[in-house]
Amino acid sequence: MSLLNIVILAAGKGTRMYSDKPKVLHQLAGKPLVQHVLDCATSLNPQQVCLVYGHGGEAVLEALQQYSAKFVIQEPQLGTGHAVQQAMPYLHDSSRTLVLYGDVPLIQHNTLHQMQQAGEGLVLLTVNLDNPTGYGRIVRDAQGDVLRIVEEKDATTEQREIREVNTGILLAPTEKLRAWLANLGNNNAQGEYYLTDIVAMAVQQGIAVHTVQAAHHWEVEGINNKVQLAGLERIWQQTLAGKLMTQGVTLADPARIDVRGTLVCGRDVEIDVGCIFEGEVKLGDRVRVGAYSIIRNAMVARDTHIAPHSHIDDSEIGANCRIGPYARLRPGTKLHDDAHVGNFVEIKNSEIGQGSKANHLSYIGDSTVGSRVNIGAGTITCNYDGANKFRTVIEDDAFIGSDTQLVAPVKVGKGATIGAGSTITRDAPAGELTLSRSKQMTIAGWKRPQKGKK
Amino acid sequence: MSLLNIVILAAGKGTRMYSDKPKVLHQLAGKPLVQHVLDCATSLNPQQVCLVYGHGGEAVLEALQQYSAKFVIQEPQLGTGHAVQQAMPYLHDSSRTLVLYGDVPLIQHNTLHQMQQAGEGLVLLTVNLDNPTGYGRIVRDAQGDVLRIVEEKDATTEQREIREVNTGILLAPTEKLRAWLANLGNNNAQGEYYLTDIVAMAVQQGIAVHTVQAAHHWEVEGINNKVQLAGLERIWQQTLAGKLMTQGVTLADPARIDVRGTLVCGRDVEIDVGCIFEGEVKLGDRVRVGAYSIIRNAMVARDTHIAPHSHIDDSEIGANCRIGPYARLRPGTKLHDDAHVGNFVEIKNSEIGQGSKANHLSYIGDSTVGSRVNIGAGTITCNYDGANKFRTVIEDDAFIGSDTQLVAPVKVGKGATIGAGSTITRDAPAGELTLSRSKQMTIAGWKRPQKGKK
Amino acid sequence: MSLLNIVILAAGKGTRMYSDKPKVLHQLAGKPLVQHVLDCATSLNPQQVCLVYGHGGEAVLEALQQYSAKFVIQEPQLGTGHAVQQAMPYLHDSSRTLVLYGDVPLIQHNTLHQMQQAGEGLVLLTVNLDNPTGYGRIVRDAQGDVLRIVEEKDATTEQREIREVNTGILLAPTEKLRAWLANLGNNNAQGEYYLTDIVAMAVQQGIAVHTVQAAHHWEVEGINNKVQLAGLERIWQQTLAGKLMTQGVTLADPARIDVRGTLVCGRDVEIDVGCIFEGEVKLGDRVRVGAYSIIRNAMVARDTHIAPHSHIDDSEIGANCRIGPYARLRPGTKLHDDAHVGNFVEIKNSEIGQGSKANHLSYIGDSTVGSRVNIGAGTITCNYDGANKFRTVIEDDAFIGSDTQLVAPVKVGKGATIGAGSTITRDAPAGELTLSRSKQMTIAGWKRPQKGKK
Repeated sequence: MSLLNIVILAAGKGTRMYSDKPKVLHQLAGKPLVQHVLDCATSLNPQQVCLVYGHGGEAVLEALQQYSAKFVIQEPQLGTGHAVQQAMPYLHDSSRTLVLYGDVPLIQHNTLHQMQQAGEGLVLLTVNLDNPTGYGRIVRDAQGDVLRIVEEKDATTEQREIREVNTGILLAPTEKLRAWLANLGNNNAQGEYYLTDIVAMAVQQGIAVHTVQAAHHWEVEGINNKVQLAGLERIWQQTLAGKLMTQGVTLADPARIDVRGTLVCGRDVEIDVGCIFEGEVKLGDRVRVGAYSIIRNAMVARDTHIAPHSHIDDSEIGANCRIGPYARLRPGTKLHDDAHVGNFVEIKNSEIGQGSKANHLSYIGDSTVGSRVNIGAGTITCNYDGANKFRTVIEDDAFIGSDTQLVAPVKVGKGATIGAGSTITRDAPAGELTLSRSKQMTIAGWKRPQKGKK
Repeated sequence: MSLLNIVILAAGKGTRMYSDKPKVLHQLAGKPLVQHVLDCATSLNPQQVCLVYGHGGEAVLEALQQYSAKFVIQEPQLGTGHAVQQAMPYLHDSSRTLVLYGDVPLIQHNTLHQMQQAGEGLVLLTVNLDNPTGYGRIVRDAQGDVLRIVEEKDATTEQREIREVNTGILLAPTEKLRAWLANLGNNNAQGEYYLTDIVAMAVQQGIAVHTVQAAHHWEVEGINNKVQLAGLERIWQQTLAGKLMTQGVTLADPARIDVRGTLVCGRDVEIDVGCIFEGEVKLGDRVRVGAYSIIRNAMVARDTHIAPHSHIDDSEIGANCRIGPYARLRPGTKLHDDAHVGNFVEIKNSEIGQGSKANHLSYIGDSTVGSRVNIGAGTITCNYDGANKFRTVIEDDAFIGSDTQLVAPVKVGKGATIGAGSTITRDAPAGELTLSRSKQMTIAGWKRPQKGKK
Repeated sequence: MSLLNIVILAAGKGTRMYSDKPKVLHQLAGKPLVQHVLDCATSLNPQQVCLVYGHGGEAVLEALQQYSAKFVIQEPQLGTGHAVQQAMPYLHDSSRTLVLYGDVPLIQHNTLHQMQQAGEGLVLLTVNLDNPTGYGRIVRDAQGDVLRIVEEKDATTEQREIREVNTGILLAPTEKLRAWLANLGNNNAQGEYYLTDIVAMAVQQGIAVHTVQAAHHWEVEGINNKVQLAGLERIWQQTLAGKLMTQGVTLADPARIDVRGTLVCGRDVEIDVGCIFEGEVKLGDRVRVGAYSIIRNAMVARDTHIAPHSHIDDSEIGANCRIGPYARLRPGTKLHDDAHVGNFVEIKNSEIGQGSKANHLSYIGDSTVGSRVNIGAGTITCNYDGANKFRTVIEDDAFIGSDTQLVAPVKVGKGATIGAGSTITRDAPAGELTLSRSKQMTIAGWKRPQKGKK
């Protein structure tokens, strides 16, 4: 297969998005529209990727700096043909050129691959629509060969019946494309240079025009406003949900899961309603995720159960853990196997050893907790003195009584016990009971406050 | 345009609602059905609004006392014609009379306005239904003029094919209406006086009968049971979601947002799945609302991010704040710019100054917190002594150590530091460290409890 | 009506489930597929229920041990006819035999009852499909009598137009069935014995073949993969939601409620979006359940309001309680009337008396709390010493100051007051103020830590 230049047109303003953000940076499934296209383009191993930008240029460049594409500005913006022309100086004549659109985000590798295999000449991606109104129709001769693309306004009544329409995505021999673009005119109402006009030129020159049909409608749907954005988001989420189920994942409701990134699941994974996955998430065999949980950039090992309403962010979770409900694991959390983290517990930048438990109303930050440690309800690691952060170390088998404050830097030794309600400011020795406690007293004759008597 | 009397029929019992509440008080989008109609009626600037009630009279009167309508009881209930008759004594003959229904909640201003402009005579609101079964058909002559309304049971096979049906909503010259109503008979199976019978009278008298088509089906859908109520709720929510998106709001899923009141959004607002908005909510530019958050009667200024699972109620939130996840802001909360409120934190009737933070597991009630204050994890303002409530004041730049109890009334001075785990019962001076703390001790030779040995 | 044997075929592996669990143990609405069938079978009062299992035998037996069915293994698995044959030794000849499928979970009592009443002979359950492709068509003669079932691959073009298809569910005279099965051949591509072949035998022998149509498509839908499982789950949930609404329950969104068990509602119950009900749940008159709440095995008495994001598990809740948001009631919780449990409060194995309140950030475990008790924010019952659990008793009218630890076993007497921040290790006498508190001190000349100077 011949090599490939890819031109991505991403200069549109997107007026109907009513946004200060350039259109192509709006997100679908947690990723800017144009990144979907760039990632798909990259998957074809092209020799050159050229991105034509315009509106919101700086924001586009900044958002896409990790891509090794050639960024070319289009200014002023005089139509799609003019946009492709800006890219021509950077394209290899020996490779064919594929034109994609930064606001048509869901084009798939397989469809583009099919275009590459459709033959020499000009290859158009088309789609059959139930309602083709507004789109350029593909007019063919009796042999079925493409004659031209007729725009809605120029179409005869008969031509308007044609359901096969142009998507704008095309693949062309680069030298030819260069010549065609040079000959484009702008003799039309908008005064713009239209890329589609090259089709007529190709036919006239006797160049073969092939067509490939997009496998799914959603691959060629463009985004011009927030209604379309939300519509395509839903289609894509349904597609992702379908893939997960086909692989054997149990979804309580495929219409109520959002995957914004990559979700890789082991065998017999169960995901309840309303969960959101962001970034890279891996769930091991038999992991269960409770309703309305939100998981971002996390590895969760086998047999771990996450109860509803939990948040997990940038964390690594061992096997057979019990988490939530209402647990919040913040970045840098590492739970070893069999750890339990319960309700209203926040963990940040901490390691929790095997079989250790923090089940109620606690804040564990910047801590290293050993194995089989019991952290009582209301325990707080005081890791911040207003200026610096310090670590708390709790060794294996320690028992931290409820409502303890561990003022870091501090260490609780192996097997130590901390009495409930203690403020621990110095290291607690291993194996011993350490506490800070005032004598319990009863005040004789004390009278309760009364309403209104302050 | 001539002046208007509006009669709202709201006497129905709603047997199939299986409820102790009168039908018209059931809520759609957080507002009783009849209030939707009253609000729409009010938007037409009528001379008189007459609400005919019956079942659950007292509850209806109480729920609607803020409206300056004339409330008229219909007892017994002898049909729609009889219902309108009850209102006649209160209507101005010089104005036309518009008849609406308390259980047809989503009728829109524009549609009624169109009826007002449809011409003199009798104006009927009709709708074309794919399946008109059960509805009264609009029978027209060859010129397209309305001849009469034929009920399902009286319709010929041919008439049953008619898809244009009567909605019951009509606009009539008041004097004529008065005369027609006086001539209504109840010679039918139910022994009721039907309002629709006036159409035939108008035609007979050579009065012009105009029709206006409702712009949307849902404007004329009535509610008779909970299935219809939920159906219309969904249609309305979709409509509201569509409006938000058209204005440029990013909705992660338009099928999973509920707006029960008014939601006004700035530019580039993003709302994740499952959020609920109640009452009056304003979100400033670039505000982001995390999944499953519930916001009621709140102003949220620009650039504030609300993380998932947060609750905000009757609060005012400054710019660039960071809230949640699992934050609960109760009535009377005012956050100044750049404030942070984190997980498992409840704030009530308190003001939090600029740049101040309460990030973990705290209860801040009846407090005034200055700027740049750091409130440690587990801090609790003890604002209630069992009889009275008192205020806590924390001045600028104070640092409250974790697990502190501030026993109100109490003041923490500017720049003061409170040691972790302290019970602060008296004012803490500015700039100094104040704490209450017992000596940390280790008990030599203490033995851990053993299982089963209590 | 004659007596009944019921044979349930549940031996399939379910390769396309991509699961280590036998197919029939996957859950729909919180119950294994085969249990839906068993429960429906049981509702017919059969003389004998025979469950034919195969793949994952042990797991199936263990999951179903509470049923008094006869469990028969099929090994090897040579088709549906062979499967039924395994059950024949345990069936009563005097009763008719009904064949059901462990992976067709939603068959309903009424449909099977209709089959029982359809007449002597062989009774087939059929269904009309818009798209019958792939199913065995019911071929009838001019009189409408069933002639045979033709499989897709053997069907003529004309027969492929038949929309009435075989569901596999049938009712047969047992002696006849025994004879027919004995005559089944396996002369087909799979080398299997097909149960459907008995239809031709019946016709040949002049036995009347009756058909009954399933009332709903979903009654006869089988599960072969996770997509179908999720699809049927949604259909079933919609059906359940429809029933609730028809009974008068107000659902904010019928597409966002999940009932996995039995939900019984009183009058004027309101359920907001996203709620999940598991096990047996009863909600009394005028109970309101806030959005995203999860309730499992609970009785909730009249007029109680549950605010959003609450979890309730194995609990009993009195009338007029106020719960949540973010409340967690764990097993063994009993709230008496008028109790309040607020945000970030966990209660476990405890009784809370009438009118008592625990509104903020508390953990109440293994406790008996009297009436009119006020439990301050941050209160923790220290019920676990690392080895054993102990009870806390708080008598009527006690006032527990914020951030108190009650180290069990301990009792707070009637009307006692506990000062904020106390660690209570011994009983607090009735009517008195008890506290443990260190003197508040201000450290003169103390300097705040500075950034980077640790």
